[in-house]
Order: sequence, then structure tokens, then C-alpha cells
Amino acid sequence: MRKAFHEELDRVAEMLVEMTHLASSAMGRATTALLDADIQLADSVIAADAEIDARRSELDLMSFDLLARQQPVATDLRVIVTSMRMSSDIERMGDLARHVAKVARLRYPLSAVPPELRSTILQMGRVAEGIVEKAGSVIAARDVVAAQQIERDDDAMDDLHRELFARVTDGSWPHGTEAAVDITLLGRYYERFADHAVSVGHRVIWLVTGEFDPASEASHEDAEDGSPALR
Amino acid sequence: MRKAFHEELDRVAEMLVEMTHLASSAMGRATTALLDADIQLADSVIAADAEIDARRSELDLMSFDLLARQQPVATDLRVIVTSMRMSSDIERMGDLARHVAKVARLRYPLSAVPPELRSTILQMGRVAEGIVEKAGSVIAARDVVAAQQIERDDDAMDDLHRELFARVTDGSWPHGTEAAVDITLLGRYYERFADHAVSVGHRVIWLVTGEFDPASEASHEDAEDGSPALR
Repeated sequence: MRKAFHEELDRVAEMLVEMTHLASSAMGRATTALLDADIQLADSVIAADAEIDARRSELDLMSFDLLARQQPVATDLRVIVTSMRMSSDIERMGDLARHVAKVARLRYPLSAVPPELRSTILQMGRVAEGIVEKAGSVIAARDVVAAQQIERDDDAMDDLHRELFARVTDGSWPHGTEAAVDITLLGRYYERFADHAVSVGHRVIWLVTGEFDPASEASHEDAEDGSPALR
Repeated sequence: MRKAFHEELDRVAEMLVEMTHLASSAMGRATTALLDADIQLADSVIAADAEIDARRSELDLMSFDLLARQQPVATDLRVIVTSMRMSSDIERMGDLARHVAKVARLRYPLSAVPPELRSTILQMGRVAEGIVEKAGSVIAARDVVAAQQIERDDDAMDDLHRELFARVTDGSWPHGTEAAVDITLLGRYYERFADHAVSVGHRVIWLVTGEFDPASEASHEDAEDGSPALR
């Protein structure tokens, strides 16, 4: 009975890791679609988000069922509660990748990204892909040290985001208001994507150490705190 | 024992409702601070967000403790799982109110909102205050019918958001890029605030009916789906 239970908990972790792969792939492909103005690729990202949503629903049902049937305590209980939260974070990352793909779709056959910002967006896409893959490894290995490193990757994303805003608002933006709106939203989507990876890291730290740090989420939120603080 | 348990569950619901009042007040005051360029009011909203965060942490600890001690099943289990999710939604609404207040702060002594958009932003603020108060009533009364009505309030928010974007991107925007960026982010903050109220409504429906609708969150996400879809 307990063996079957722990196999189920392992399966939950596996499903979370699979979701991180899907989210990473989605954001990588969305970034390519955006930079290459590739509408087929954008559409494939938009369509594939349903798969991430379905995984999340499946995982949440499984977690709820485990709570009801197994009445877990201590670490097992933390695993399940944390999994429900992480599934929500990763599902949201999938949504944000879809938002990026929708901007690509909206501007087709043009690219929404002006030439001088392509490099910054490319880097944001790479940081996004990397940070969610790291979040997956952290989940798989319950690796507290790597979980803490996720914050540094998020700092890199914040720097890129700041750079993006500086370009848009430095007074010499030549691309018009619509392009400024696109870049503002894109910056926010990538930034929020990384925030959710940080959140996954915090949850794994809590899972392993049992230390509930009420400030962690809020203080991180202060650091990322919307784009105004970044400008 | 069971009586004490149900008193604790009632207390959880009360705390959630109190959080909705705090979030409503925060967004109402943030909107006033934004329109009146009132930096003291903006600062008070920013400072008060810590209270919402603290309530959320307290509530989550209490919920986790109830899961561990009471081993609830069926509706009681749904109450606790749902509460953890709703506390996350409402805490996020507080963050979004703080983001609005930060835009007010950033532009002081000017207002970030051009004269011709004041009425739209005022309405968005009112819809936001109303929708989170309704979410609070839905939680208190477990009112499925009112929960479904929240989506209509969200439609009103989407209409206002669309109006905002149309003004910014119609080609005759005279206020420069920085103001366009501000309005883009503000629109996104109000829209996401309302989305979280919709999410609370969905969770109450699940709590009461036990119907797990995997599509509800995703399809709502499709409807609100970032600003690009609105344009």
C-alpha cells in the first residue's frame, strides 16, 4: 500500500518534470516564431498549450485523489500540496509562452521585434528556456542549492527586461506606439515566466526543508514588482 | 472535535473574505492615487500589501495544519484545497493593486493617465473593486449563481481594456511612448485582477458542485488571453 503510494508520488514528480519540458519547448518555439515571424510555428505553440493545461488538470485530480485516499502527513503531505502549486506555476508558464506566440501571430508577416531588440529578446527566450529546465531538474532531484540558483537566472531576466524598457522609453524610440505596446507586453510575459520558475524553486525549498518562509513569495514579488520598478 | 474542526473551516472562509476586502480597498485606493497623483495614498497602498501577504501566509499555514491534523475527505477536503488556491488568487490581486500604485508613484507629481482616459481607468477601478467584493460574497455564501455572474463583470473589464488599447494604438496617440507603456501595463494589471476574481468564482463552483471542470481555467485564459487577443 505505502509502496504503491510512493510510486504514485514519484509519478506526480515525473509529470511535473514533463510539464517543465513542455513549457520550455513552448517558450523556445514562441521566441523563434516571434523573431522569424513564423506563423505556423506560432500556431503550433498556441495549439500545444492545451496539452499543458490537460497535464495540469490530470495532475491536480491525481493529487486531490491522493490527499483523499492516503491521508498523508509530514513530507508526503508537503509533496502533494507543493505539487498542486507547482502545476499551477508551470501551467501559467505555458500560458505566457502562448501569449508570446499570439503577439507573433498578430504581427505576421512582420516581426513584432525591431532589429535592434532582436538580440535582447533572443536572450530572454534562452533564459526562459533554461530557467524552466532548471526548475524541472530541481523538482526531479529536490535540489535546494539549484533551487536557490534559480533566483540568479531570474536576475539575468530582470536585467534584460530593464534593458528592453530602457530602449522603449529613452525618448528616441522610432517604431511607434503599437510596437512599444508589443515590446512592453512581451517584456512582461518573459519576466513573469521567470518569476514562476523562481516560485517553483521556493516551493521545492519548502518541500525539502519544511521551512515555510512567508516572506519568500512576497519579497520576490517586490523584486520583480511589475515593470515600473524596473524602469 | 468535529465541531472545532468546522469552526476552523469557517474561520478559513472568514479570513478569505477579509482578504477580498483588503484587495478591494487596495485597488480602489490605488486607482484614486493614480488619477489624483496622490503619492501618500500610493505609498499607503504599497505598504498595506504586506498585510495581505501576511494573511495569505497565515491562511496557508492554517490550511496545511488542518490537512495534517484532520485528514479531511470529500467537501471538507475541497474546502481546504480550494482555500489554498483562493488565498493565492487574492494575494496576487493585492500585488496587482500595488503595481498600479507604483505607476502612480513613478509619475508623481504628474498623473500617468492622460485626461481622455481618466474615465476608462476610473471605470476599470470600479469594476475591479466590485468584482473582488463579489468574489468575497461568493466565498461567504458559497453562491454558485453569483460565482457565474463574476464572468459577466469580467466581460465588462475586457471591454474597458479593449477600449484602452484602441486609444493607445489607433495611430493618433499624442502622449509619447512612456505614457503608452504606462497605459499598457495598467490595462494588464486591471485585467489580471479581474481574471483572479473569475478564478475564485470557478473554485467556489468546484467546491460546491464537486465538478472538476478542467476546461474552466484554460478557457477563461483563452478569453482574457493577454492583450494581443483583445486588440
